[in-house]
Amino acid sequence: MSLVSFDDFKKIEIRAGKILSAEKIPDTDKLIRLSVDFAEHDEAGQPKPRQIVSGIATYFPDPQKLVGRTCMFVTNLEPRTIRGHESNGMLFAVSDEAGHFSLLEPNDSIAPGTVAK
Amino acid sequence: MSLVSFDDFKKIEIRAGKILSAEKIPDTDKLIRLSVDFAEHDEAGQPKPRQIVSGIATYFPDPQKLVGRTCMFVTNLEPRTIRGHESNGMLFAVSDEAGHFSLLEPNDSIAPGTVAK
Repeated sequence: MSLVSFDDFKKIEIRAGKILSAEKIPDTDKLIRLSVDFAEHDEAGQPKPRQIVSGIATYFPDPQKLVGRTCMFVTNLEPRTIRGHESNGMLFAVSDEAGHFSLLEPNDSIAPGTVAK
Repeated sequence: MSLVSFDDFKKIEIRAGKILSAEKIPDTDKLIRLSVDFAEHDEAGQPKPRQIVSGIATYFPDPQKLVGRTCMFVTNLEPRTIRGHESNGMLFAVSDEAGHFSLLEPNDSIAPGTVAK
């Protein structure tokens, strides 16, 4: 892995987001569609959660177990369309080749939208 | 915040590390010197933990409470010298301006050295 500068690091925005809903995307092996609250609002001041697609269905056979949890997401990636579903961010979690997996869940003091640094 | 590409994101390496020791750096307000295990070894095959300096003493008046915990670190930043102490990485945690703070602690299945993605 090459070394990076602190400026390179600062370009990446990783925020806490609270998962409002989670559902398996039909006809896919791994994809779950999340609605995630980052305390963002639309022009009328209404809450505007983001849709984020994540390939974690293997670890969460019951996607409902994700709902209500706050974890970390990369929030300034270019939007992508995954199997026809727009994704406005990426779950940021820890996994290894042996199949171990962990969300990164901050403690309860951290509000949705808070930036990691 | 500007959008970044997935390639920009992939340049940044964030790994789980287990804190082996933690001590306040004398004559500083905030600095704690950590020794962190990332499952790295020296040329003779001996464990080679990294020294990492972090400005979190405000949140951990008793640095011993950090010892034994696994949390996340940026591990490919250029080394820095902070108040005379070399730092070979940066604690990656969540905080806000109101003083809330959280480590990002993966579950027990995650071994030191595992990369977040």
